[in-house]
Amino acid sequence: MKLTVLGSSSALPTSKRFPSAHVLNAHERLFLIDCGEGTQMQLRKCSIKFGKINNIFISHLHGDHIFGLYGLLSTFNLMGREKTLSLYAPENYLPMLHSHLRDFDINLNFEIEFVPLKGKDPFKIYEDKYVTVTSFPLKHRIEAYGFLFREKPADRNILKDSILKYSIPTLRIPGIKKGQDYITEDGRIIKNNEITISPDEPLSYAYCSDTMPFSRLAAFVKGVDLLYHEATFDGSMTALAKQVKHSTTIDAARTALKAGARTLMVGHFSARYKEINGLVEEARTLFPNTIPAIDGTTYNIGDLAKKP
Amino acid sequence: MKLTVLGSSSALPTSKRFPSAHVLNAHERLFLIDCGEGTQMQLRKCSIKFGKINNIFISHLHGDHIFGLYGLLSTFNLMGREKTLSLYAPENYLPMLHSHLRDFDINLNFEIEFVPLKGKDPFKIYEDKYVTVTSFPLKHRIEAYGFLFREKPADRNILKDSILKYSIPTLRIPGIKKGQDYITEDGRIIKNNEITISPDEPLSYAYCSDTMPFSRLAAFVKGVDLLYHEATFDGSMTALAKQVKHSTTIDAARTALKAGARTLMVGHFSARYKEINGLVEEARTLFPNTIPAIDGTTYNIGDLAKKP
Repeated sequence: MKLTVLGSSSALPTSKRFPSAHVLNAHERLFLIDCGEGTQMQLRKCSIKFGKINNIFISHLHGDHIFGLYGLLSTFNLMGREKTLSLYAPENYLPMLHSHLRDFDINLNFEIEFVPLKGKDPFKIYEDKYVTVTSFPLKHRIEAYGFLFREKPADRNILKDSILKYSIPTLRIPGIKKGQDYITEDGRIIKNNEITISPDEPLSYAYCSDTMPFSRLAAFVKGVDLLYHEATFDGSMTALAKQVKHSTTIDAARTALKAGARTLMVGHFSARYKEINGLVEEARTLFPNTIPAIDGTTYNIGDLAKKP
Repeated sequence: MKLTVLGSSSALPTSKRFPSAHVLNAHERLFLIDCGEGTQMQLRKCSIKFGKINNIFISHLHGDHIFGLYGLLSTFNLMGREKTLSLYAPENYLPMLHSHLRDFDINLNFEIEFVPLKGKDPFKIYEDKYVTVTSFPLKHRIEAYGFLFREKPADRNILKDSILKYSIPTLRIPGIKKGQDYITEDGRIIKNNEITISPDEPLSYAYCSDTMPFSRLAAFVKGVDLLYHEATFDGSMTALAKQVKHSTTIDAARTALKAGARTLMVGHFSARYKEINGLVEEARTLFPNTIPAIDGTTYNIGDLAKKP
């Protein structure tokens, strides 16, 4: 799993920070999470292939999380896209999208499969061979959702030497990869852990923006490898954060701590912060393994998880 | 007059070229012309003050010329703007803007004065002490307009020495600046050109995008100092240009030639051109004083006009 941050600003972009958008690469599936203005230009700068994006997740309907979608859809169209695009967004976005396409007389030459986000509990919205995606409610000024991406446990890796040593027939290999022991022709039981090794641990990534802190959030992202959590403000601005239903660095660090996350990534920084080192340092006082979201940077979640 | 190019791409932006947007600074009034996606980020990069933008001109309702407007309006709002914003756009944009604001539950804390663009002839849409702006029809797949910005002729500059020499009273100075001769107390006539010098020539800038070539266009921009003209394609692609109602470098150069423009700036380049030198060179074969539009660059129109 690799995460590319396309935008780390809150509502007001700066000369260095674009509005919210992340791309998660999980087994070469690209999941676009939020789509702030300029997302398509950031995708170009990061040399990310537009054609590999088949799923777009919109956390909530504030402009800094969605105003890039119009340009991106038009670009998909101009590039001749025909593949269906799955779009996960709050339910009331569908009529808005339709009226936009009608107003601008845009005839998409591909289908949009619209998956409405809803509910007060985590809800599985995507599943394939390798990954599941669950949405969960956040607490913001308007309806908002977070997303949890989880790799499925991979099969065990069979040792090539043991195939030769015990003359294991091809037919038996799938079962052994699933954890079965191997019984030789003469009835000897070879324990699975003698002929296989464990696969890499499945990884997970959670996206929480925009939200104020609330008690259930940590449970929604329990044990996640990389927790992206908005930290619009520093700890001294708790009152303002509460008022506008955002989080501070301290809020983000507390949630990471309570959730037992391996790594915390803070982002969605207010334009008032020219430098963000102070925000990261503040989060680290509570949760040492904190990193900042930096536009145009790709993070290997497996590598982050290995760090002490 | 200074022109800053914020975006020089056509519909598909590239890693180096943003969609269409120009800022013209005329006597510290900032006129924003088109507002493609990412305009607000480009304004930040160019350190252009948002508060000085009071007039936005939208040539036509294709996304690459307007999708940045939503974010910019939201940003104006978040920055606490209260000043009225004048928006010049094709008539049918007003209901689209209203439905956008309603959909996203955006309450602007400033007024938008909407000026509908229309007509088959040039039409004065703005005038102040220093500048007039005229719209004129272009020829594209949908209703589209160009804009001509003209400085008004400035007053003549009175020579300070002559004020002392002839003891010219303050009351007479405005008249002399307008070109009157001065009559001394003893009845002597001092010719105006003995006591004043000519002001700088008034400058002009025209924006023509998107359009295919058509015969009246040159007349609309007759004698302009800087003609920005789209050149989406090179000369070998005339058939495609015609089909999608765009121009080639050759079309742009021909119009500049016919109009007697001083300088031609080509832009709105198709994403197929990684390098644009070839396009500029091609235009120069017909119209030598051609320059390319380059994102993030500011051009002094007075300096361009002085060149041979």
